[in-house]
Amino acid sequence: MGIHTFFTSLNDLERIIRAPGRFKFEEHNVAAHSWKVSQYAMFFATIEERAGRDIDWKSLYEKTINHDFAEVFIGDIKTPVKHSSPELKEMISKVEEGMMEKFIIREIPEEFQQVFFDRMKEGKDETIEGRLLELADKLDQFYESFNEMKRGNADPEFGKMYRIALTKLLNIPLEASVGYFKNILLEDVINEDSVIDVKRITLQVIERHKHSPYIS
Amino acid sequence: MGIHTFFTSLNDLERIIRAPGRFKFEEHNVAAHSWKVSQYAMFFATIEERAGRDIDWKSLYEKTINHDFAEVFIGDIKTPVKHSSPELKEMISKVEEGMMEKFIIREIPEEFQQVFFDRMKEGKDETIEGRLLELADKLDQFYESFNEMKRGNADPEFGKMYRIALTKLLNIPLEASVGYFKNILLEDVINEDSVIDVKRITLQVIERHKHSPYIS
Amino acid sequence: MGIHTFFTSLNDLERIIRAPGRFKFEEHNVAAHSWKVSQYAMFFATIEERAGRDIDWKSLYEKTINHDFAEVFIGDIKTPVKHSSPELKEMISKVEEGMMEKFIIREIPEEFQQVFFDRMKEGKDETIEGRLLELADKLDQFYESFNEMKRGNADPEFGKMYRIALTKLLNIPLEASVGYFKNILLEDVINEDSVIDVKRITLQVIERHKHSPYIS
Amino acid sequence: MGIHTFFTSLNDLERIIRAPGRFKFEEHNVAAHSWKVSQYAMFFATIEERAGRDIDWKSLYEKTINHDFAEVFIGDIKTPVKHSSPELKEMISKVEEGMMEKFIIREIPEEFQQVFFDRMKEGKDETIEGRLLELADKLDQFYESFNEMKRGNADPEFGKMYRIALTKLLNIPLEASVGYFKNILLEDVINEDSVIDVKRITLQVIERHKHSPYIS
Amino acid sequence: MGIHTFFTSLNDLERIIRAPGRFKFEEHNVAAHSWKVSQYAMFFATIEERAGRDIDWKSLYEKTINHDFAEVFIGDIKTPVKHSSPELKEMISKVEEGMMEKFIIREIPEEFQQVFFDRMKEGKDETIEGRLLELADKLDQFYESFNEMKRGNADPEFGKMYRIALTKLLNIPLEASVGYFKNILLEDVINEDSVIDVKRITLQVIERHKHSPYIS
Amino acid sequence: MGIHTFFTSLNDLERIIRAPGRFKFEEHNVAAHSWKVSQYAMFFATIEERAGRDIDWKSLYEKTINHDFAEVFIGDIKTPVKHSSPELKEMISKVEEGMMEKFIIREIPEEFQQVFFDRMKEGKDETIEGRLLELADKLDQFYESFNEMKRGNADPEFGKMYRIALTKLLNIPLEASVGYFKNILLEDVINEDSVIDVKRITLQVIERHKHSPYIS
Repeated sequence: MGIHTFFTSLNDLERIIRAPGRFKFEEHNVAAHSWKVSQYAMFFATIEERAGRDIDWKSLYEKTINHDFAEVFIGDIKTPVKHSSPELKEMISKVEEGMMEKFIIREIPEEFQQVFFDRMKEGKDETIEGRLLELADKLDQFYESFNEMKRGNADPEFGKMYRIALTKLLNIPLEASVGYFKNILLEDVINEDSVIDVKRITLQVIERHKHSPYIS
Repeated sequence: MGIHTFFTSLNDLERIIRAPGRFKFEEHNVAAHSWKVSQYAMFFATIEERAGRDIDWKSLYEKTINHDFAEVFIGDIKTPVKHSSPELKEMISKVEEGMMEKFIIREIPEEFQQVFFDRMKEGKDETIEGRLLELADKLDQFYESFNEMKRGNADPEFGKMYRIALTKLLNIPLEASVGYFKNILLEDVINEDSVIDVKRITLQVIERHKHSPYIS
Repeated sequence: MGIHTFFTSLNDLERIIRAPGRFKFEEHNVAAHSWKVSQYAMFFATIEERAGRDIDWKSLYEKTINHDFAEVFIGDIKTPVKHSSPELKEMISKVEEGMMEKFIIREIPEEFQQVFFDRMKEGKDETIEGRLLELADKLDQFYESFNEMKRGNADPEFGKMYRIALTKLLNIPLEASVGYFKNILLEDVINEDSVIDVKRITLQVIERHKHSPYIS
Repeated sequence: MGIHTFFTSLNDLERIIRAPGRFKFEEHNVAAHSWKVSQYAMFFATIEERAGRDIDWKSLYEKTINHDFAEVFIGDIKTPVKHSSPELKEMISKVEEGMMEKFIIREIPEEFQQVFFDRMKEGKDETIEGRLLELADKLDQFYESFNEMKRGNADPEFGKMYRIALTKLLNIPLEASVGYFKNILLEDVINEDSVIDVKRITLQVIERHKHSPYIS
Repeated sequence: MGIHTFFTSLNDLERIIRAPGRFKFEEHNVAAHSWKVSQYAMFFATIEERAGRDIDWKSLYEKTINHDFAEVFIGDIKTPVKHSSPELKEMISKVEEGMMEKFIIREIPEEFQQVFFDRMKEGKDETIEGRLLELADKLDQFYESFNEMKRGNADPEFGKMYRIALTKLLNIPLEASVGYFKNILLEDVINEDSVIDVKRITLQVIERHKHSPYIS
Repeated sequence: MGIHTFFTSLNDLERIIRAPGRFKFEEHNVAAHSWKVSQYAMFFATIEERAGRDIDWKSLYEKTINHDFAEVFIGDIKTPVKHSSPELKEMISKVEEGMMEKFIIREIPEEFQQVFFDRMKEGKDETIEGRLLELADKLDQFYESFNEMKRGNADPEFGKMYRIALTKLLNIPLEASVGYFKNILLEDVINEDSVIDVKRITLQVIERHKHSPYIS
């Protein structure tokens, strides 16, 4: 028991691969993903701050680096599984929460348990930092699926993942950030050379989003 | 929908790694594991047949090659997680069953659904074939943990995995097979050169098993 | 000497890569391949049984899981090499047989030697189980080459491998299975998105097969 | 040019391996390393805060996630190289700075250039956040070398890396954090089973440190 | 100190990956690259010899196998970095030279130091062997970038690398070799199936080269 | 047909792994091995030259870089297989020769066929260059098995490989080189830290070699 056990589990997350089981040209581990999320979030928080909003940087820091820690227990359950039914999704969340609670109580010294309970709880709440986490997490899913298609991965699952991530990004209630993403970043992304025609898919999603914003 | 989807998920299982997250010198995927289990089971079924017992080879074939198919849905959940509490283990089983049911109903053509429901149900029952599956599955866990320790993996989790697998093997109600394992196979295993002293651990387990057979 | 040595060589087959030396997006080891073959064979045996034929399940089990064991000795010799001349192919087979014989005599306890000689002999004979093994083995070659082309592997060797596997599949004397493969499974396969136009190649092969069934 | 280029280089850092060229049982990429550093830093900042010091969380967040971004240009130059001579070290730093400046001017939109210049400058200054970054970075080097030795990596370079990291950790002017590290964390680390006797090495370093704190 | 240290660094070069940080379908290490360069050079030296020129084979052997040894110190710095500015390129060369000098003086026994200084100095001089090294080194860059594009790698950096390598190849002052490359080898290369249209790119480069031979 | 096909097979050799099927901490491909052999050979040729012998550097260059090219056809057949019986070894050699002949006649332009036949024939003849190739090839086997044991690979096959390589090295009729290896290089090797006690094994081999030089 002790912080050494916690630090050791950070290393474990370098060995948890995202989207396990699925063929992909490039694998990503949860540790590296968490870092990219913390980078995206810092950039968009800067955008929001310039648009006049207040950022609680400590909260954003905590939310981004800890948001997938629970995957150390049961891995990155495939997204299609998570979404297959509300009850199954609910059960998986309960298993993760149960494991996390046990972990904190068994491994974390008592004086730090409250801190860990706070930091490890679900971060995607309705605060601006929760929204920024949501945006950053979806952006990484967007990039991961984009890169697979760009390199010729014809697995339709990545097309689906891309459409879902893009639609969700467009719907996040962070006006300045979503505006920057849609008007500036997205332009650069879809003008890249790509084996699979991602530009066409992107324009379709954007078109449909104008009329029915919640369908991907 | 169709058998093509099923055949594609067999390929997915080549990408599901056993004991994910844990450092190991050699990774094993679920497809290769399933094959080794089907080989061990065939050998011990031969032992049992020579000892006068009847083997239903079709059932053994079905049980061994299908026993981990459900891992295509949620991966190889870490053993410590599975065993952390009876309720969590129960919930994970339910998630797997729910996913399997959905998969068969959505993907398998109606004329084959019953066959798949039969083949994919939990195979470790009290038939002799169920016991042989149990023995073969534990034997692979025994070999995996043995090989890590032999090569110098000092992670105590593999020591624990080895002790648990060995204790369970000694308790399986298949007299001829367990006798062969204990008196012949185990001798050869523990006489191998090993960086970590597995011989000592093995003798401890055997000694304790004489007095308290259910504690590992 | 002993069964432990045999069990250890099963682990070795997890490290023997199919089609060595050739660039591929996804590698497959012989252990995982053997498992997929045992799965395909079980499915098509079910088709044949429903079409009124008797299946010796024990034989099918033995044939499928053991059919590539000899690759532990000399690896998966490249197919183009195997086919480069009848004499070379003959010599390679003799080397494999010689190695297998030595292995059984040196490593397998005398009481099991006859069983191993039976199980390890060439399985692709003219029994229905031998045909099912042939079909399942070719089906895996078909899937492996299909998946490479689908992901954009432009190496013409995979195109050739695909054509050969497909032609051989169409010629296997198992009416019900080949019918199911051709009329149902193949449809689903060629309707997948693919970087290289596999649909066109497939239709060419089927067309030519009508007129000259033995040319790929 | 644009933020998309910056986000793409984050992905590049997943492919930059630490301590390149050196044999190691486990590879670590710079992205995952940066995340672990941001985790360690958050923990020790909490320790310092409880000891009465003020933490600028935004600064700590910026420093930790960006501290190795410059490795995207020239990789993780081997530590022995960096330390081989003060002039060479100086030149390598200049190359990195030159590349970074060019990158920001060419790729980052003008409105964000100042922000990037601030965030990407050397973070290990004399502020408390700079010290926490130094501690967290050394702690990861400590863990990386510890884990190699624990698993039997006899390369003396890892022993040297461990001694240097440990000595530097003990000298960082953060009393509460270094106390926690030395009295609590280190205890747990050296009581782990290990193929190479790290406990002995650790006790030597601590002993020598009492008398000559700046020699590793 | 000693030749053992030198031999050990040869092994290190098997772990130095070319074009680090960049996504590629196939990785190449510096050791294997050096071998391919020594093979290409031998072939084109044969062409030159037949065209009546004298080859100093010992020199060619020394130049090809040693030309990238210095990468053991700082890895394969990304080409775009090397070319980003003349001063930076100059500084990187100085760092490499400084490291090499230190290495030879520290590790190589005195009696061999002069031999090593001679063999390890920059090989791409104006001798015919220096030109052959230049040609062989560029040819490997040509093949590496060609193969990535052929397999669908849409990263524009590989297109750029291909154009630069091709242009440089066409400009090397070795008439017979460049003639053979351009008229015979190149034909075979561009007639391969390819996901990205390399044929078109190649024809563009050749066309432009006729008019402006030094622009790629 | 053409030199492009030959150059492509060089790339194939980067994917042929030495000692396939056997567990090892570090894999080596045939291309990188060939390069290390060409480096060792150049060093020991320098030793011989200083001892007054004439070196045909062109021949040494040809022999070392081509000596394992034939493995592109059938891979690196396991050493135990090669040595299992003189007839099997003979047959494998014939298969390799047959493949090589076919390859040269089919793929190499007629004007270069004779050159290729000369370069690709067995290089380990009784010339001094043939002996140097033999020494360099065995030295790499020596280093590969040494490194596995040093890192804790307890597989007895590597101990056997080490003993065989060492004994053969001591018997090669190149007085100056073997003297340098035995008196200088070997000293440095066995004084390295090692998980498995290689020093003891080495001293045993040297002791036995004094009395019975041909037994390993």
